[in-house]
Amino acid sequence: MKLLKDKILKEGSALNRHILKVDGFINHQVDVELMYEIGKDFAGHFKNYQITKVVTIESSGIAPALMTAKELQVPMIILKKQPSKVLNTHLYQTIVKSFTKGTSYELTLSKKFISSNDRVLIIDDFMANGEAARGAVKLLKMAGASIAGIGILIEKSFQEGRQKLEEENIEIYSLARIKKLDQNVIEFF
Amino acid sequence: MKLLKDKILKEGSALNRHILKVDGFINHQVDVELMYEIGKDFAGHFKNYQITKVVTIESSGIAPALMTAKELQVPMIILKKQPSKVLNTHLYQTIVKSFTKGTSYELTLSKKFISSNDRVLIIDDFMANGEAARGAVKLLKMAGASIAGIGILIEKSFQEGRQKLEEENIEIYSLARIKKLDQNVIEFF
Repeated sequence: MKLLKDKILKEGSALNRHILKVDGFINHQVDVELMYEIGKDFAGHFKNYQITKVVTIESSGIAPALMTAKELQVPMIILKKQPSKVLNTHLYQTIVKSFTKGTSYELTLSKKFISSNDRVLIIDDFMANGEAARGAVKLLKMAGASIAGIGILIEKSFQEGRQKLEEENIEIYSLARIKKLDQNVIEFF
Repeated sequence: MKLLKDKILKEGSALNRHILKVDGFINHQVDVELMYEIGKDFAGHFKNYQITKVVTIESSGIAPALMTAKELQVPMIILKKQPSKVLNTHLYQTIVKSFTKGTSYELTLSKKFISSNDRVLIIDDFMANGEAARGAVKLLKMAGASIAGIGILIEKSFQEGRQKLEEENIEIYSLARIKKLDQNVIEFF
């Protein structure tokens, strides 16, 4: 998606081989028109996939997921992060380890909101090693849902998230795929 | 707002004098069309207030704030929660204590995104004692911004958030004001 790539080159900041700051338009301050265009793009790509719900992980995926759900005219579900595991029989729960941040958290989904009748599109802002996306897939499969695909704004394609998810036969559609990242270096495929 | 009040009566669940569960359409699963109508309502009310940015607190305020910002054609800013205070010279920081949840967290705003030229509309899902809203006001005032008002989806009017904020001369516009809450009891003003 040219609009997003241009924005990343103009306003993003590559700090090192792992960190691309996009807090001026995605993470902290949100460019609402850009999110609207991103939602239309995802909805256009996935429009014939019989999506029943759009799912995202709190909190930077919420804005693009909401715009995508608006276009597809389906509800959005926010998978919640909890700092530690507290067993709850009303929730599906899984632990996600973030290698980028060196932290881990529990991801949860209320059993009420997803069933085996659902065909789900997952939307998130970043994919690197794919831990968050794989956690989401695991929760949704616990609920018996089928995964229609994953829409990602920025994919760090030099890390192994895509490969791991494709091994599970999950389609990944990324709007900006980064081939190389380093201090002041951003190269797309 | 009749649409929201009807939805609360039909799908909300009053557990006790403090907890109203709305996770089927606001907090966990999000009714996207409802958020769109809410955004239009807030934008309509605040359209002549010269808003430059819409600000919300992660993460359940993001959906209605995004729709409001879309209608007002301004950026949205997400105030970030951190579990503990780590001093950072690039951030405005304040501690928020949540009496409802019995927890506290740090709320942060990057200094890059708000200045004394900004006139800000704060949007959040709930207001009870007003701790989160007052934390947001404090951060925005540190940045020198003026506060145009606060838009709230559900106000627990039997708690003192409104009074405390009105004492600071801040206008609060709530879509559903709850007079009385108890197990299976929801009464609006």
